[in-house]
Amino acid sequence: MSNDPLVVFTPSGKRGHFPLGTPILTAARQLGVDLDSVCGGRGICSKCQIAPAYGEFPKHGVTSTPTALSEWNSVEQRYKDKRGMIEGRRLGCQATVQGDIVVDVPPESQVHKQVVRKRVEARAITMNPSVRLCYVEVQQPDMHEPSGDLERLIEALDNQWQIKGVRADLHILQDMQPILRKGDWKVTVAVHLGDAENPARIMHIWPGYYEGSIYGLAVDLGSTTIAAHLCDLQTGDVVASSGIMNPQIRFGEDLMSRVSYSMMNPGGAAEMTRAVREGMNALFVQLATEAEIDKDLIVDAVFVCNPVMHHLFLGIDPFELGQAPFALATSNAMRLRAEDLDLNIHPTARVYLLPCIAGHVGADAAAVALSESPHLSKDLVLVVDVGTNAEILLGNTEKVLACSSPTGPAFEGAQISSGQRAAPGAIERVEIDKTTKEPRFKVIGSDLWSTDPGFDAAIATSGITGICGSGIIEMVAEMRLAGIVDGPGLIGSPDQTGTPRCFLDGRTYSYLVWDGSENGGPTITVTNRDIREIQMAKAALYSGARLLMDKFGVDKVDRVVLAGAFGAHISPLHAMVLGMIPDAPLAKVTSAGNAAGTGARIALLNTEARTEIEQIVRQIHKIETAIEPRFQEHFVNASNIPNSAEPFPILNSLVTLPDVNFNADARNGGDDGETGGRRRRRRG
Amino acid sequence: MSNDPLVVFTPSGKRGHFPLGTPILTAARQLGVDLDSVCGGRGICSKCQIAPAYGEFPKHGVTSTPTALSEWNSVEQRYKDKRGMIEGRRLGCQATVQGDIVVDVPPESQVHKQVVRKRVEARAITMNPSVRLCYVEVQQPDMHEPSGDLERLIEALDNQWQIKGVRADLHILQDMQPILRKGDWKVTVAVHLGDAENPARIMHIWPGYYEGSIYGLAVDLGSTTIAAHLCDLQTGDVVASSGIMNPQIRFGEDLMSRVSYSMMNPGGAAEMTRAVREGMNALFVQLATEAEIDKDLIVDAVFVCNPVMHHLFLGIDPFELGQAPFALATSNAMRLRAEDLDLNIHPTARVYLLPCIAGHVGADAAAVALSESPHLSKDLVLVVDVGTNAEILLGNTEKVLACSSPTGPAFEGAQISSGQRAAPGAIERVEIDKTTKEPRFKVIGSDLWSTDPGFDAAIATSGITGICGSGIIEMVAEMRLAGIVDGPGLIGSPDQTGTPRCFLDGRTYSYLVWDGSENGGPTITVTNRDIREIQMAKAALYSGARLLMDKFGVDKVDRVVLAGAFGAHISPLHAMVLGMIPDAPLAKVTSAGNAAGTGARIALLNTEARTEIEQIVRQIHKIETAIEPRFQEHFVNASNIPNSAEPFPILNSLVTLPDVNFNADARNGGDDGETGGRRRRRRG
Repeated sequence: MSNDPLVVFTPSGKRGHFPLGTPILTAARQLGVDLDSVCGGRGICSKCQIAPAYGEFPKHGVTSTPTALSEWNSVEQRYKDKRGMIEGRRLGCQATVQGDIVVDVPPESQVHKQVVRKRVEARAITMNPSVRLCYVEVQQPDMHEPSGDLERLIEALDNQWQIKGVRADLHILQDMQPILRKGDWKVTVAVHLGDAENPARIMHIWPGYYEGSIYGLAVDLGSTTIAAHLCDLQTGDVVASSGIMNPQIRFGEDLMSRVSYSMMNPGGAAEMTRAVREGMNALFVQLATEAEIDKDLIVDAVFVCNPVMHHLFLGIDPFELGQAPFALATSNAMRLRAEDLDLNIHPTARVYLLPCIAGHVGADAAAVALSESPHLSKDLVLVVDVGTNAEILLGNTEKVLACSSPTGPAFEGAQISSGQRAAPGAIERVEIDKTTKEPRFKVIGSDLWSTDPGFDAAIATSGITGICGSGIIEMVAEMRLAGIVDGPGLIGSPDQTGTPRCFLDGRTYSYLVWDGSENGGPTITVTNRDIREIQMAKAALYSGARLLMDKFGVDKVDRVVLAGAFGAHISPLHAMVLGMIPDAPLAKVTSAGNAAGTGARIALLNTEARTEIEQIVRQIHKIETAIEPRFQEHFVNASNIPNSAEPFPILNSLVTLPDVNFNADARNGGDDGETGGRRRRRRG
Repeated sequence: MSNDPLVVFTPSGKRGHFPLGTPILTAARQLGVDLDSVCGGRGICSKCQIAPAYGEFPKHGVTSTPTALSEWNSVEQRYKDKRGMIEGRRLGCQATVQGDIVVDVPPESQVHKQVVRKRVEARAITMNPSVRLCYVEVQQPDMHEPSGDLERLIEALDNQWQIKGVRADLHILQDMQPILRKGDWKVTVAVHLGDAENPARIMHIWPGYYEGSIYGLAVDLGSTTIAAHLCDLQTGDVVASSGIMNPQIRFGEDLMSRVSYSMMNPGGAAEMTRAVREGMNALFVQLATEAEIDKDLIVDAVFVCNPVMHHLFLGIDPFELGQAPFALATSNAMRLRAEDLDLNIHPTARVYLLPCIAGHVGADAAAVALSESPHLSKDLVLVVDVGTNAEILLGNTEKVLACSSPTGPAFEGAQISSGQRAAPGAIERVEIDKTTKEPRFKVIGSDLWSTDPGFDAAIATSGITGICGSGIIEMVAEMRLAGIVDGPGLIGSPDQTGTPRCFLDGRTYSYLVWDGSENGGPTITVTNRDIREIQMAKAALYSGARLLMDKFGVDKVDRVVLAGAFGAHISPLHAMVLGMIPDAPLAKVTSAGNAAGTGARIALLNTEARTEIEQIVRQIHKIETAIEPRFQEHFVNASNIPNSAEPFPILNSLVTLPDVNFNADARNGGDDGETGGRRRRRRG
């Protein structure tokens, strides 16, 4: 045993004996304890803050007293005066070992800190970003030993940070010499640590110690919306989030209509590529402005998207994705530079696209897999990412299956007569009284029900403007529960339903939700065509899930995770009443929010997750719904909104599904045929 | 011993037993014999032609007879009918082993063939280009085993060509899918095999078998001229060569005036960067047009240049190179893409810049070292690359020293009153009769002396327009030998020289070479100022060489290699009369032509040479002339044109240097001071 004092680090439990006078940072490095430092122990960055613990620690076999560390010094005092420091904290590079001591490394002082996610059951994200900041002191040039400034900078990164074989992007070389001299040969460097395809590279350089941070983007490029998080690559914090409509919508609402646009218009694919890149650039400017940072500080970006979006974003004509065998140009993960894609962030910002799983199962599904980790689940979990195209994963530690299903944009409020995007004024929650058939609802922007006093005042600004995706799901389910809609999906007549809110609207009946016309507002109704759209969408979703269950050889799942930009807002009960998802215990139906976006954020903050997902996708079994006869079969069977006779025992134990049938009226046939026809064309 | 037939390959001598029916190509591959094939043995490319040798080969222990190979087949006949084939040749993929056989692989069938250089003493270039063509058959997509088209192409390259982990440039992905289908899943791929920084990458793809070739550029970017060779990367042939003036000349004739331009004009460096890149692009278009190829087929380019050109080409302000300690932004070799430098060839063509040796000793000197290999020489060799900036190497297998010396553009015909670039009409050879002091000369474009009958007719088109670099060297040396110029560099008066060709021209005398004024042509004279310019230039060159000799601890060298765009045209004797180079046996003074350009070509055709030069430059000792007092000392001593009293024993044994001194006339002093002053400013 050494006579040197014992230093024990918590929470890692790593321990060792160190000579008197060893800085705590040095001890941490020698033991491989995760203690951050940007300045390399020069008392500049204060990232190495530690919390000494005093007292008896029988567990560690240590009694540590305040004299076990060197005295508070002037460097620490200067930092505390300038920036403030939590009482009891010390700087690891200044405090030296004077006796046995227990030292806690608080989360914010760890490089590989855990970023906790909002949902309790979700895995935390371990910080391991692609780019890190390093302060270095560079050897000055010497005529007698000529070498380039860059080579001496690289040497400094090797000697002072053990980062080997770093290269520099050309633009760094173009700016580096004056910066080195301005910083008097002390600079802060943002180093991309390299990846499977590329060596480490210098991406940014600042004179002296750079106090700011560096940023990355996690982008969920959907058919309908583009959502992005701007993240601090040092803390893992989301510093700004925003979304825009995908500007490609003007070329077609769903994927197949965009593929058709490209087939029928020479240069159409290029036009859509330009549109989506321009839209993204506008979004990035918005995020950088919101976070008040220079967009040149955005040095990494991760994108997830479905295969058609993936190809159009990369500038690849999606022609082959429009027809069997749905051949992807590439399925592997992509590592590119921002300038390759005309992205207006740091010119050589690294761009990572998650791998695609198959021609219809994209990087977005891979991102959902990364976020929800079905491959690590002991329960059999069904993950449904609801969007214009639904990604469905079913699996457990044994195996994972995946497919996608063309739900169309109805769940996002499109193709619904009073549909709209989730925004203030949109109806998001609905209840219909089973006796009176009167609705009450909540709109985004207020917590009050429409029947509550003060509701009118609360929504005075936004008004009531339409129904959003989660609202339409509840609406149709509530209509079913109230007996306004029957199992096959027909809205009854006023006579059949007993409410004047049902009225003849062309050849079918509609249900009046809200008449705002007196005040110049909209009249919000649910038409039988809206019901049909939702039936088609939910049937596509349900059939995909059923198909995977068939392939897995099960007829029930242990739990269901609803994901998607609006997945968080879907009521599990209503989703089940509608027949969107298989029967499951309500408590086992949870929302994962935008799991694809979260997957992108995980891959952004933790480069090891990139390797992980690249391995996972190789093990996922892909099911192509377009060529599975069972899918069509399920689809036909699933278009009904459930009856009590149908196999939803859990659901049937919770609610009573009215046994109504409005089919005596033959005039609804036409609609069915038309909608079905359009649906089929989408796959065409 | 196997009973299978023995196959012996020449010239490699590799041998092995193979079962009856084994194709010769298969045998070659198994033995590691260098036998080319683009189509992988499918009888398409005919690159695997071999020459069977019949007879007794006691050396190989084989008697080979015509029945030792399978019979001439229809594939061979079809190829012969279509393209022609040398009698006796067979296709290695068609001819199979039927008995003991000796097979010669002719040079054109070797991938790593030797490209012989014109000079007998120079090392041949072993072909090992960065990019090669591979014909592959790609698995078609299968919905049940979804994978990207690219991934199946990559798999084919791995299976059929053993090229692992290939990636694709983005533009390949954008074009690949229709090409794969057009070629019915058979394509020819140009694969960059990767380098120290990058994995292998697909750069080009053609449907079916691509009959054409791929090309590379070897570019010598000089201060005054840009010279480039367009090379076939399969054969190693130079298919077009051309040169243009460096468009940066308008910003300053020599390096230091360009550095000054950049210092004094905001954006000046960027302006010069643009100019040189635009000039290069124009040159590349010219080369591609001359060779009748699409410039998109240029997939690799190697550049050599001095440090200032290097920085300006890369877009780096050369400010630091204008002052001690002459810090390079980077000294290592650079690997970039054409688009990074706005080069208008294949957008992701690989660009390689040789490493720089020091702040004043650039990639051009490295290229000279690669071409002339002083590090492999047993003799002590002095290599002088004559240009606006002279690169000087001195060394042998023991060590190599290098420096550069600012000779100025006089040797390229600039700053000389009748100077011009080497072009038809320029005087390139001179003799002056020692008695009559009458000159005779040759001009570029004719082999006749000006005193030969028919000379006037021979030069009728070009006329006599001026004196080129090598011409001015001979001119001054001949003037010295004829006693028209004295040792210190003064032109004598008509009285002193005895010829009316010497005439008072301002404050000094000039020598009339040619009076073309009668026919409206120029009057070509050599002024005393011209002599001064040449003296300064040759003193700079000589002092650099002497400085290296001091550092090496020698006072003579075994041999001298004159390199440079016009190095090939310099007469060794005249160079020595002028005192450009140290005294050496005339037979040991040779010309290497444009050694820097040759070095670029070597690095282009053989990627291993890139690794080699990167190692060599690390071992070269750099001498900075600007801070060596001995350099100034040598410079002052070397401004004289040698007298018989000076230490040139070999020279003095060959010629008689007239013992004249015209210094009685004091009016020459002013010129000296002025020229010297200007010279010093260049380093400022």
